[in-house]
Amino acid sequence: MSRLFLGLDAGGSWTRAVVLDAEGAERGRALAAGANPTAQGAEGAVRRLAEAAAAALGGLDPGAVAGCAVGLAGYRALADRTAFAERCRAAFAIGTPVLLYPDAVTAFAAGTAEAAGTVLIAGTGAACSQVSERQVARFSGGLGWLLGDEGSGFWLGREALRHAHAEPNGLLGRAVLRHCAVERPEELLPWAYAGPPRRLAQLAPLVNATAAQGDPAALAVAAEGAEHLAALVRATAVGGEPLVLAGSVAGSPGPVRARLLELLADHGPISTAGDPAAAAARLAGAASPDGTGALGPDSGRSPGSGKSPGSG
Amino acid sequence: MSRLFLGLDAGGSWTRAVVLDAEGAERGRALAAGANPTAQGAEGAVRRLAEAAAAALGGLDPGAVAGCAVGLAGYRALADRTAFAERCRAAFAIGTPVLLYPDAVTAFAAGTAEAAGTVLIAGTGAACSQVSERQVARFSGGLGWLLGDEGSGFWLGREALRHAHAEPNGLLGRAVLRHCAVERPEELLPWAYAGPPRRLAQLAPLVNATAAQGDPAALAVAAEGAEHLAALVRATAVGGEPLVLAGSVAGSPGPVRARLLELLADHGPISTAGDPAAAAARLAGAASPDGTGALGPDSGRSPGSGKSPGSG
Repeated sequence: MSRLFLGLDAGGSWTRAVVLDAEGAERGRALAAGANPTAQGAEGAVRRLAEAAAAALGGLDPGAVAGCAVGLAGYRALADRTAFAERCRAAFAIGTPVLLYPDAVTAFAAGTAEAAGTVLIAGTGAACSQVSERQVARFSGGLGWLLGDEGSGFWLGREALRHAHAEPNGLLGRAVLRHCAVERPEELLPWAYAGPPRRLAQLAPLVNATAAQGDPAALAVAAEGAEHLAALVRATAVGGEPLVLAGSVAGSPGPVRARLLELLADHGPISTAGDPAAAAARLAGAASPDGTGALGPDSGRSPGSGKSPGSG
Repeated sequence: MSRLFLGLDAGGSWTRAVVLDAEGAERGRALAAGANPTAQGAEGAVRRLAEAAAAALGGLDPGAVAGCAVGLAGYRALADRTAFAERCRAAFAIGTPVLLYPDAVTAFAAGTAEAAGTVLIAGTGAACSQVSERQVARFSGGLGWLLGDEGSGFWLGREALRHAHAEPNGLLGRAVLRHCAVERPEELLPWAYAGPPRRLAQLAPLVNATAAQGDPAALAVAAEGAEHLAALVRATAVGGEPLVLAGSVAGSPGPVRARLLELLADHGPISTAGDPAAAAARLAGAASPDGTGALGPDSGRSPGSGKSPGSG
């Protein structure tokens, strides 16, 4: 029976699970709802992780899982990590311990095989971590939508809405009004306050789309967002170490990422995170007590290719 | 029987009601919860206004009310102002029509007897209005805590919390940690997200208090807040017209107001809003069909004194 390695990546919006065999071939994959213990509570987070794990394992034998690792958003705030990892093991019905990492560690490992460097995760939120030996050594940003996250998807969406309120007739303004299904800019305010604040991140793709059409306002918002993200990297990175870009804003093509790469042109090597769930599976393989025979962190992927299925 | 004039000022947090007689003498006063129809709904807002009116009238005869005016937060978003005013009249049990004004108009009238000028209301939120003949002609800011309100009490409180998270050992940082009853800066984030976002405005007075003790961080936050408010004024004001400062941040002594006055030193005359409920009562008197005998907008007060009871 082939040994299997189960990797999970749990973000605020989505949880991804991947099963690799010892040769690095993908044997299963699944997507479930977000599993951040800060937002969902520890019990809810374990339940969603277990859903993703069970779906990825499909008809495979959980008893064949020789290693398992989880990259978890909300890791820092988790009070009892040992208990959480043990609850995961029980819920996944596997015999091997579950290794728990901050989501920054799996995102970093999804972009480089180096042991130390910096990872910028800019999706709905924005945070930058300097990672060393599977731990977060330094950290900037990540204050959330209420307190910061400048340059994040939330921030881009909020700037788009502010712009549309002031200048409803430009490309970006019209796109925002259309998205919000309102006719007059004053109606944008009730729309903004009617839902959960993080909903403003829905508007971030409109910045991308209209910037691609050359809209000067969208380009200005994107450039300012990139400045914020570059400042986050500069506050966190250690000179000469690699930088990994992850998340829908920093890790996907678009004007923010393009400008960010320009601003960080003097930085060392920059790569893009591939699939953090697969990276978690590889970390599990590398840490497997079976040793050398297990899947190493480099197997089955091109570092920095950013082309892994399911990335972003 | 003496004729009475009823004035109300309805904000997001508080509703104030004042009864003046035709000589301008105060005959009643009351405070009730906020009555913003955007937040409370029209029905809830009318109910709270009626509570305040009834309490201010006390044992006085509502039939003696010869004029009534309400300055209303959320006026702009109110769909049917005629119906709202008529519901107020019925709920107040008075025979005279209720004049409805934006809260900016009553705040402006509480600071000057001029017909046209600018009023900056910076309390929990921040908005600037150019007022002319009892109407708002131009408007800036007022986007609310989620979208803007830079320089407002919410913004000052959020900046104080951000600073405390980064620098917990300064005067301001320690004051914030103490207010939030937490020991470590990381605990400030759960505190911030646990309550309604506007609760961050609670921290604004800590900026005032520690700035008064010379804390450089608090002084820097206050100075940046004042820059934002001055920009709002410059975007709105018409040259040469008077400026009225209102609200707990702009209208009360403190480092933001002090810096704001420096920044606007080249502006025309600047005064401080007194009591907007009394100003509403005077507007009602001035508009009274009884004409010249009624309480005029200048009676019973020193314009710009900012010393009226219940101001701020």
